[in-house]
Amino acid sequence: MKFGRRLIDMADRLAEHSETSDGLTCTYLTDAHRAVAAQLCDWMSAAGLQTHVDAVGNVVGRVPSRTGRKTLLLGSHYDTVRNAGRYDGRLGILAALLSAEELHRAGEELPFHLEVIAFSEEEGVRFSTPYIGSSAVAGRFAPAWLERRDHAGDSLDEVLQEAGGNLETIAALARRPEDLLAYLEVHIEQGPVLLEQNCPLGVVTSIAGAVRYTVTVSGTAGHAGTVPMHQRHDAATAAAEIVLAVEQRCSMPGLVGTVGQLAVPAGAINVIPARCVLSLDIRAAEDTVRDAAAADVLKRIKEIAQRRGVLIETQELMRTPAVPCAPALQDLLSESIAACGASPLRLVSGAGHDAVMFHGLTDIGMLFVRCGNGGISHSPRETVSAKDADIAVRVLLEPIRKLAGRHVT
Amino acid sequence: MKFGRRLIDMADRLAEHSETSDGLTCTYLTDAHRAVAAQLCDWMSAAGLQTHVDAVGNVVGRVPSRTGRKTLLLGSHYDTVRNAGRYDGRLGILAALLSAEELHRAGEELPFHLEVIAFSEEEGVRFSTPYIGSSAVAGRFAPAWLERRDHAGDSLDEVLQEAGGNLETIAALARRPEDLLAYLEVHIEQGPVLLEQNCPLGVVTSIAGAVRYTVTVSGTAGHAGTVPMHQRHDAATAAAEIVLAVEQRCSMPGLVGTVGQLAVPAGAINVIPARCVLSLDIRAAEDTVRDAAAADVLKRIKEIAQRRGVLIETQELMRTPAVPCAPALQDLLSESIAACGASPLRLVSGAGHDAVMFHGLTDIGMLFVRCGNGGISHSPRETVSAKDADIAVRVLLEPIRKLAGRHVT
Repeated sequence: MKFGRRLIDMADRLAEHSETSDGLTCTYLTDAHRAVAAQLCDWMSAAGLQTHVDAVGNVVGRVPSRTGRKTLLLGSHYDTVRNAGRYDGRLGILAALLSAEELHRAGEELPFHLEVIAFSEEEGVRFSTPYIGSSAVAGRFAPAWLERRDHAGDSLDEVLQEAGGNLETIAALARRPEDLLAYLEVHIEQGPVLLEQNCPLGVVTSIAGAVRYTVTVSGTAGHAGTVPMHQRHDAATAAAEIVLAVEQRCSMPGLVGTVGQLAVPAGAINVIPARCVLSLDIRAAEDTVRDAAAADVLKRIKEIAQRRGVLIETQELMRTPAVPCAPALQDLLSESIAACGASPLRLVSGAGHDAVMFHGLTDIGMLFVRCGNGGISHSPRETVSAKDADIAVRVLLEPIRKLAGRHVT
Repeated sequence: MKFGRRLIDMADRLAEHSETSDGLTCTYLTDAHRAVAAQLCDWMSAAGLQTHVDAVGNVVGRVPSRTGRKTLLLGSHYDTVRNAGRYDGRLGILAALLSAEELHRAGEELPFHLEVIAFSEEEGVRFSTPYIGSSAVAGRFAPAWLERRDHAGDSLDEVLQEAGGNLETIAALARRPEDLLAYLEVHIEQGPVLLEQNCPLGVVTSIAGAVRYTVTVSGTAGHAGTVPMHQRHDAATAAAEIVLAVEQRCSMPGLVGTVGQLAVPAGAINVIPARCVLSLDIRAAEDTVRDAAAADVLKRIKEIAQRRGVLIETQELMRTPAVPCAPALQDLLSESIAACGASPLRLVSGAGHDAVMFHGLTDIGMLFVRCGNGGISHSPRETVSAKDADIAVRVLLEPIRKLAGRHVT
């Protein structure tokens, strides 16, 4: 439990830095965020890593190899959502840091460079732009983002310069595919699957692709007392059918569908709704599965509109492809979990992670750690046990050692 | 068409007085409202009625009988909702006024007093208290209402005094049951039934009773990507089932059920809804029918809650009994409609009207006039044709004459 207890303590220490006096909020480049970066720098340096903060605020700790040329990246993010839990992102950084420290302590030399990267921005809270940190390292940072402004009206450009970042060097942060060995990320599951299956760890098979829509139903307003049921064109009953159609169609393994926003604008208790607006989010491990579900839902929406005599507009807001994890890394992680005596459950990640940015650039592997409290995340009620954190560090060490054995140069 | 054209013109004149520069809004005791009262006074006086404005702003025009003791009341209201149509309430006042004028013009003496009352307040917009005008005449005015305040913070008490009303005399406005012969009200239907059935007029059989609830569904929030469908406790899908259960159970003649308010508070596109709030309004011509429907819906809600593992709270907000119209008056009105060559359709009023206040005090009768534009009301798009308005006045005259024949003293 030496890794687990330390990891939980370190996460507690990081959580002391918050923009709010109670709870934990640590968004990009705020004072709290910079204090966390400074703490991570100290810890990485103390662990024997060559450490620096890059132009977009990532904290990078490097263990150079004397024999190898390629780099194994271990990363996750240290920014948080508002009123966050203390493990989302940080668990992965600390597990990577403790693994690197352990290798250094034991004098294990690797035939590749090892880098632990604490990405500065993943949640997208401050500038409504997620993955700012990892996108820069993956060469996907878009210069247009520099003009985006936060709620106070400050641009990313201004905030980065004020933080001492040299904007000219952002492009140079991008790694070349030929220089990378792989990208590994540990993250809490943020869901209840491992908890339900009684598994401390899980191997991610792919990060689900998502498609999102806004659906606007337009019916006919009317007096709740005077319009007979068969003469109504009620926007809310049509919307209710859509909500249930989404649930029904998406209730199969590897697929989820959610109506997170649902409202009759300015609804009155005695007025038949003329309008109802809802959001639609469909995700699947495979894009074909997701697209088939979305197509069926849109078809059902058309049928509902026609049958009920309402008008329905659907607007696609976003479409991201599913990102597969490398089978070889999945196998390595599974073997390591099994070697620790746990059952190596494989599961899809429904949430996006920094790993997505490295797809197409290098092999990616992700290890999920069981989330307590029913799987709740993005909440102060998010928990991880010291025991599970301990196993996570031990399991992460194994593929690093095995990759070292396979990649002797 | 002499009555119809005049009625439409008069409604247009009244609509010139509005609190807003465009559209029609005329709420209780505003300048626009008082201007309408003054105009109605002028017209009633010119029609030969003894006219005054009472302590709560009702405009009362009386044709005293030399031979009778009882009073036949003809009434409706002259206040409006915000952004209203010009016939809701006013059509009934003007039809009564033109009928009284016609009787006076023709020198027809009645064996009962005839009173045309333009009620000052029915919609409940300014003080969130409906029926202020008719409740005073029916002896149901509650002195506690005087303390209610409008959005500007002015109390009903202050507003009435400022308007010159003597609060001491409100109680004395109440009529004694033994002094009343009957209460008749003409009103636009505010629904599509007469339009669909191709009938200019309809006879109201009863004014539906209503029961209203607020329903709060509490489920469990979760990440839209990470919680498998079968592990969700989604408040919005539970609410969707409730919406459809209401529609299904209330889809029978004489019954309506409406979810007018529906919202996931602070819903986010990628979060499984933890909460959904909806309103429920069930109305029926018969209280037993309404109560059976409400009981079934509440039972369905419990089943949904249990099956989905969500918590559902229902709070009853209002319960009003159905008010039957007097069968004898229904027959008189039906005969009059048939005598005009139209089909005397009988229908339930799903909306409340001033007539409700006179239930238990005297016999009530209500005549509905076809509403154009698909039956839309409480909207600038509300219409009544001059032809239908004309028939309404002619039809209203007949029961007055017939009651005169039956009630020779």
